[in-house]
Amino acid sequence: MRLHGFFRSGASYRLRIALALKGMPFDQTSYVLRHGDQRQPAYLEKNPQGLVPTLELDDGTLMTQSLAILEWLEETHPEPALLPKDPMARARVRAFALAIACDVHPVQNLGVLNAVKALGHTDADVNDWARRVNQQGLDACEKLLSNTKGPFCFGDKPTLADICLIPQLANARRFGCDFSGWTRLNEAEAACNALPAFQSALPERQPDAE
Amino acid sequence: MRLHGFFRSGASYRLRIALALKGMPFDQTSYVLRHGDQRQPAYLEKNPQGLVPTLELDDGTLMTQSLAILEWLEETHPEPALLPKDPMARARVRAFALAIACDVHPVQNLGVLNAVKALGHTDADVNDWARRVNQQGLDACEKLLSNTKGPFCFGDKPTLADICLIPQLANARRFGCDFSGWTRLNEAEAACNALPAFQSALPERQPDAE
Repeated sequence: MRLHGFFRSGASYRLRIALALKGMPFDQTSYVLRHGDQRQPAYLEKNPQGLVPTLELDDGTLMTQSLAILEWLEETHPEPALLPKDPMARARVRAFALAIACDVHPVQNLGVLNAVKALGHTDADVNDWARRVNQQGLDACEKLLSNTKGPFCFGDKPTLADICLIPQLANARRFGCDFSGWTRLNEAEAACNALPAFQSALPERQPDAE
Repeated sequence: MRLHGFFRSGASYRLRIALALKGMPFDQTSYVLRHGDQRQPAYLEKNPQGLVPTLELDDGTLMTQSLAILEWLEETHPEPALLPKDPMARARVRAFALAIACDVHPVQNLGVLNAVKALGHTDADVNDWARRVNQQGLDACEKLLSNTKGPFCFGDKPTLADICLIPQLANARRFGCDFSGWTRLNEAEAACNALPAFQSALPERQPDAE
């Protein structure tokens, strides 16, 4: 299979982690987001939203939206499990993942930051926007873990929650967030980044890293 | 159970539809978003993100993030099904739902629009932002349905896709989007709004409607 993505795209990074955890090899095609590669007509045929990632299966089937792909991976390649078995425990993991995937990531992605800039604001204003979104969003995520056991977000194995958290922390670091209050998030990051699957997915280890 | 929400909140509207489709009665507590009710300390104890909705079960269990709650509803109350059985078909429905829930809804919610306003922009600028996000996002959603059969988003029954679409179309209408190119979206809206479950969930029929 082939991952159409970008080394710095958080949603591509989620899929790199999950595919590595599931032991599924993949090739990559890179789209430089700030050049608008993802809005070229040939790619829009694959992904009408003009976003990365898209996962292309060996039979040519195209899949979009990282969380939909993660759920499909879990349903079709159940081991190792990325969701617990109990429905309420699954809901807690998904709520954490969605708190990042809906309420942090899309509000600080390149499209939104470009839209803020197009309103006449400086790079410093844009960075302030991105830092605020990450800080407030991840402050809330830390609270969502207040009653959970570590070292991962939800216990002793990585889940969809960690898969969404780790790429977002990379962005938060890039935008200058204050990590000092994030006890559980920092613990989960350390546990994840000790695993080969997470290491192989690191942005700086991708072929298109700049 | 009790839905903590707001008549005009799109994510609350999703849950009202799904609970009605599943035949599950619920009470409501209303949070007037522009007054900041959702950021009061007592509510932040229930929902650390300070967002609606929160679903409170009869035993006091609190659930957040509408899509996580929808997946839990589907797992614990499987009939009528809101997702198809085939994994790839499920992925298509979820990708459509997430295209709205991640890439449209959060980029035009009240918090983001207030953030744009706080940068010194007018109500007209803010409305332009919201209209653009809805127009571009739903234009892409129309394309995601180009190979599907109606009258609903994915066939002859409503799914999670319709549950996310209908509240977003209500916002799109409010912000003045052009619906004329949305053949499949309009068809799905008409099919949904003919159903009693969707009718009972309409914003204007809620006790807190203004």
